[in-house]
Amino acid sequence: MPFVQVQAIEGVFTEEQKREVIARITDVMVSIEGESLRGVTWVNFIEIDSGCWGIGGQPLTTEAVKAMQNGG
Amino acid sequence: MPFVQVQAIEGVFTEEQKREVIARITDVMVSIEGESLRGVTWVNFIEIDSGCWGIGGQPLTTEAVKAMQNGG
Amino acid sequence: MPFVQVQAIEGVFTEEQKREVIARITDVMVSIEGESLRGVTWVNFIEIDSGCWGIGGQPLTTEAVKAMQNGG
Amino acid sequence: MPFVQVQAIEGVFTEEQKREVIARITDVMVSIEGESLRGVTWVNFIEIDSGCWGIGGQPLTTEAVKAMQNGG
Amino acid sequence: MPFVQVQAIEGVFTEEQKREVIARITDVMVSIEGESLRGVTWVNFIEIDSGCWGIGGQPLTTEAVKAMQNGG
Amino acid sequence: MPFVQVQAIEGVFTEEQKREVIARITDVMVSIEGESLRGVTWVNFIEIDSGCWGIGGQPLTTEAVKAMQNGG
Repeated sequence: MPFVQVQAIEGVFTEEQKREVIARITDVMVSIEGESLRGVTWVNFIEIDSGCWGIGGQPLTTEAVKAMQNGG
Repeated sequence: MPFVQVQAIEGVFTEEQKREVIARITDVMVSIEGESLRGVTWVNFIEIDSGCWGIGGQPLTTEAVKAMQNGG
Repeated sequence: MPFVQVQAIEGVFTEEQKREVIARITDVMVSIEGESLRGVTWVNFIEIDSGCWGIGGQPLTTEAVKAMQNGG
Repeated sequence: MPFVQVQAIEGVFTEEQKREVIARITDVMVSIEGESLRGVTWVNFIEIDSGCWGIGGQPLTTEAVKAMQNGG
Repeated sequence: MPFVQVQAIEGVFTEEQKREVIARITDVMVSIEGESLRGVTWVNFIEIDSGCWGIGGQPLTTEAVKAMQNGG
Repeated sequence: MPFVQVQAIEGVFTEEQKREVIARITDVMVSIEGESLRGVTWVNFIEIDSGCWGIGGQPLTTEAVKAMQNGG
């Protein structure tokens, strides 16, 4: 406690970035709740299939997200 | 907001059907909450491994669901 | 199977609207997966506290959502 | 109702063990809620990628969990 | 790891029963994964508002579940 | 996308701290995925009833967590 779950479309975050997300979200939580809760602060990361995430009903693909990242 | 998550056993819905689920659930939400919230109405779709979903303790497989669909 | 979970900020949907969401999302699923799966098609609705949902880091309140609904 | 979701790192539980988890968690629920709810007691099992689960910010791998299991 | 989440309609389980569910699900997991993982075996329990859980599109209330429990 | 959900025992985080968690987790995600995805980076925060979260089968209460925070 706490438990944090991250959901993102597959392939948008590299393995290294996922580790960074886990480490830095943990640091955010611990900086607020206190270092003594670090051992019971969990973060996990789930990938959703490309095209299986709709925004406004439009399916979002890995490529579409990457285009957004590149200012597309 | 809102965020809708669909969970189903793998292989029961085709890719096209998953897109249809996402689009039509979004339309249901928007028809109730208002078109102005379409852009912040998210739906995603997660597949669970065949046999990793129990009803009454009995593991349900993709084949078993298809048999149910065909009136089995 | 399937299981659908709806998350929305508290107070945006009336009790009646929540029932409508549950009924109509079920109808969407059943129209695609087949009537024979109606009995194993579940939808539940969870409300999140006002201000406990961030978009782009900005906390969204019930009032803010209602303003959006009214074209604010 | 009830719906129980189990999340574990991939490869820690064998297919047989996952079935056993589903069956025995269902039995626990039914022994408390009553046999009449067995048919509406669902349990599913989701696997998280190795390294995509942090405890205290440290990413946990399948191998690390197995080492823990073996007293490592 | 593992993390188990139980969802049930409000008021169906007493506080004592919820504790029993948490303890006994933990025991099931530990008996399969090994006692060494007990400290990292988490179970939490979430209650869903009465009427906010649909089975086949029909909203299930606390009273309806209790009637089912009593063979109604 | 991405969607981040934080679960914590009720009363451990103040309203202000919950806002801070939402803002700072968003900043972590955006610093990795890119500022262009800020508008589609969501974080929400769910509170679990005191005593409804077990670690190793032991129910954790709000008071117990506060004691841990104070080095108890």
